[in-house]
Amino acid sequence: MTQLEMMGANAKQAARVLMNAGAKKDEALLSIAQALRDNAAAIIAANEKDIENGKAAGLTPSLLDRLKLDESRIAGMAEGVTQVAAQPDPIGRILEGRTLKNGLQIEKITVPMGVIGIIYEARPNVTSDAAALCLKAGSAVILRGGKEAINSNKAIAAVMRDAIERAGLPRDCVALVEDTSRQSATELMQLSEYLDVLIPRGGAGLIKSVVANAKVPVIETGVGNCHVYVDKTADLEMAANIIYNAKTSRPSVCNAIETILVHKDIAEQALPVIKAALDEKNVELRGCERTRAILGDCVKPAGENDYAVEFLDYILAVKVVDSLDDALDHLAKYSTGHSECIVTSDYAAANRFTACVDSAAVYVNASTRFTDGGEFGLGAEIGISTQKLHARGPMGLNELTSMKFIIRGNGQIR
Amino acid sequence: MTQLEMMGANAKQAARVLMNAGAKKDEALLSIAQALRDNAAAIIAANEKDIENGKAAGLTPSLLDRLKLDESRIAGMAEGVTQVAAQPDPIGRILEGRTLKNGLQIEKITVPMGVIGIIYEARPNVTSDAAALCLKAGSAVILRGGKEAINSNKAIAAVMRDAIERAGLPRDCVALVEDTSRQSATELMQLSEYLDVLIPRGGAGLIKSVVANAKVPVIETGVGNCHVYVDKTADLEMAANIIYNAKTSRPSVCNAIETILVHKDIAEQALPVIKAALDEKNVELRGCERTRAILGDCVKPAGENDYAVEFLDYILAVKVVDSLDDALDHLAKYSTGHSECIVTSDYAAANRFTACVDSAAVYVNASTRFTDGGEFGLGAEIGISTQKLHARGPMGLNELTSMKFIIRGNGQIR
Repeated sequence: MTQLEMMGANAKQAARVLMNAGAKKDEALLSIAQALRDNAAAIIAANEKDIENGKAAGLTPSLLDRLKLDESRIAGMAEGVTQVAAQPDPIGRILEGRTLKNGLQIEKITVPMGVIGIIYEARPNVTSDAAALCLKAGSAVILRGGKEAINSNKAIAAVMRDAIERAGLPRDCVALVEDTSRQSATELMQLSEYLDVLIPRGGAGLIKSVVANAKVPVIETGVGNCHVYVDKTADLEMAANIIYNAKTSRPSVCNAIETILVHKDIAEQALPVIKAALDEKNVELRGCERTRAILGDCVKPAGENDYAVEFLDYILAVKVVDSLDDALDHLAKYSTGHSECIVTSDYAAANRFTACVDSAAVYVNASTRFTDGGEFGLGAEIGISTQKLHARGPMGLNELTSMKFIIRGNGQIR
Repeated sequence: MTQLEMMGANAKQAARVLMNAGAKKDEALLSIAQALRDNAAAIIAANEKDIENGKAAGLTPSLLDRLKLDESRIAGMAEGVTQVAAQPDPIGRILEGRTLKNGLQIEKITVPMGVIGIIYEARPNVTSDAAALCLKAGSAVILRGGKEAINSNKAIAAVMRDAIERAGLPRDCVALVEDTSRQSATELMQLSEYLDVLIPRGGAGLIKSVVANAKVPVIETGVGNCHVYVDKTADLEMAANIIYNAKTSRPSVCNAIETILVHKDIAEQALPVIKAALDEKNVELRGCERTRAILGDCVKPAGENDYAVEFLDYILAVKVVDSLDDALDHLAKYSTGHSECIVTSDYAAANRFTACVDSAAVYVNASTRFTDGGEFGLGAEIGISTQKLHARGPMGLNELTSMKFIIRGNGQIR
C-alpha cells in the first residue's frame, strides 16, 4: 500500500462513522472554528515560512497576498466554518417517495458521497472552507493543496484533525496530502478504490490535467469564458453598466466576462458608449474588423485565440455579429458553459437566448458576476461546476451529497 | 479529424437542434417505432448473419438466444419506443426557483445532457431502447454495441436514422460506431470534446475498462454483488422466500443475490430451511466453516473470492456472522453498492441496516430483485447506476438530464 492508499483506506473508515454522525458533525465544526482561533499564532508562523519561500521563488505580489494569513483572515476562516455548522444538514432529506401497489414503500434520500478528494492551488483558506463543507455533508475529505501554501496547510490541517478528534469523530475525516509533487496529484486522481468523487479547484491547467488523468468521477469547476451579447433592442445604458460590472468588478474570477458580442444594427451607437464606460478602468479592447471600423485603431485586432481564452484581466474581446443566431453559433463554439448574458428588450430574443444557450447560468439583463453560491442563496460554495453531470453551476452543500433508495416491505418477492 | 471525432461533431450539431425540439421528439420516436415494424424483414435478415457468425464463433445457446431477433421481438422493440414517446418530457421541468432581494428571478430547470455515449454488449434491442431514451431526453446518442450484434445494430440504426430524418430532426441524433474493435471503444471513452457523458452497459470487464480509460464523465452501471442478511429475529419462512426469489428468479441479472449472511443465533434453524428452498433449483452453496458445520459437506468450502465475485448463476455463497455489525463490515468490504436486504422483525436492526448500508437500494424484508426502473415506477430504464455521482440506482429519463440556471433581471449588477 502506498502512503496515499493508506490515507484513502483511513478516510473510507472515517466516512463510515461520518455517514450517520448527525449533530456530531456540527460539534466537530464548532470545535474546528474554536481551534483555528486558538491556534492562530502557530498557523501564522507556518504561513510566514510560505511567504518567505514565495518571495524567494519570485511569486507576484497578488499571489503573495492570496497566500498571506493574519489574525483577521484566520478569524474569517473560523467564521466561515461556524456558518457551515449553522446550515441545515443536507443528509437524510427525503427527495421523493411512494408506495407501490404491492405495498413496498420506497423513498429516495440524500446520503454522503463517502470520500471526497479536493485538489486546489494557492489559497490556504480553501483548506478549512472545503474541509468544513465536506464534513457537514457527511463525507471524509482528502485535501491536496498547492506547494506554495504547504506549511500553512499542514498547520491548518493538524489543528482541524485534533479538533475533530476532540469532538469525538475520527481525525481521518480530514486528511492533507503533504507531498505536493505532480505525482501525488496524479496518484490522487487515480485513487478510484477509495475516492468517490474528485473536485479540482483552480485554473484551466489544473482542470485539464484532472480531466486527462482522473480515473475517479470528477466535478469540473471554474473555467469561465463568459459572454455578454448586446441585442439590437438593448437599452444602451443598461448594456454598458452590465458589461462594465461583469468585466471590471473583479476581472480575475471565473464569472467575469471575456468577450462581448454586439448586434450589427446597434453596434455603431453601442460600442462608443460601452468603450467610454470601460475606459474608466483602462480596459484593453481586442476587436473584429467591424469593431475597429467603428472604434478605430485604439482597439487591437482580435485573433481567433482572443475569443477562446480567459484573460482574467482588464482585457475584453469584442465581436460584431449579424444576428442572435450568429451570437448563438459563437457561443456554441467558444463558451466554456459557465455564464452568458443577453441584454435585450425583446421578449422573443430573451426566450430564444435562454432556451438555446447551453451554459450553467444564462442571464437576461443582469451581470454574470451573480453566478455564485452565496448570491444564488445556496449558502457556502465549494466551486462552480461547468460540467453537466451531477451538479451544474454554483455547488453548495446539497451538491456534495449522493442519494440512495430505501425500500421497506413485509416479505414481497418479484 | 478521425471518423469518430467527425461523428462526435455531427452529434453535437444535432444536439443543438434536439435541445429545443419539444414535441418533435415524440414524432421522431413514433416514426422510429413504425419504421422498425415496417423494416422487420430487413432487420431479421441482418440478424441472421449475426446468428450464423455467432454459431461459427461458438457462442453459447443462451448468448445466441439473447442475440436472436424475430418478428415478435422487433414488435417488442417498437412497442418499447412507443412507450418512451408516451412518457412526459423530462426537459424543461423547473426544479427550483426563487426571487432574490435584488429582484433577480432565478430558476433551475432540466436541460439535455448534450451528447451521450453508450457502450454495450450483445443484445441488439439495446440499440433501439437506448436511442429512444436519449432522444426523448433531448440528447444525441453515439451507440457502440458489441461485435456479435454488429449486423443487426447497423440495420436497426439505419432504420432509426431514416425515421428521425422523416420526422424532421437531424439523422445524426442517433449514430452507431460500426468499428467494433477495442480501439474504437477506447477512442469513444476519450472523446471528451464531444461527449457529455458515457454510460457503459455490460459486465464487470467492460465497466472496469471504461473506468480505467475514460476521459469523459461516466455513469457506471450494473455490477451487482448483492446480499441478503438474515437477522437473528428474521421470520424464517420470509427469509427463505426472499432468498429463493432473489437468487433463482433470474440468476443472470445484476439485482440477483450472490451471498447470504446469517446471524449465528438463528443459523442452525435458518440454514436448513433456506437450503431446502434452494434445493428445488439445485443451487450450489459455498459456505464458511460454521455453515458447513450445520449443513454438512454438501456445502463446498467458500474461498475469499467466493464473497467477492458475481456468480450470475445458480451458486450462492453463505456466511454465518456474529452480529449485525459483523454483517455491516462484510458489506463494507465486499458489496458493490447495488442492492442489499435485511430480513428482520426488529425495528432497531432494520433502521440500523438502512442507515449504515451504503448501497443504491437498501431493502427491509423484500427481494433485491425489485431494483429496476419499471418496478420502482420510473418508467423505462437506461441502466442501474452503482456510482454516487449524478444518479444512483435505476436510471429513468430524469437521470438522463442535466440542468441550468436561468436568471432574469432588469439591469442588476453586483
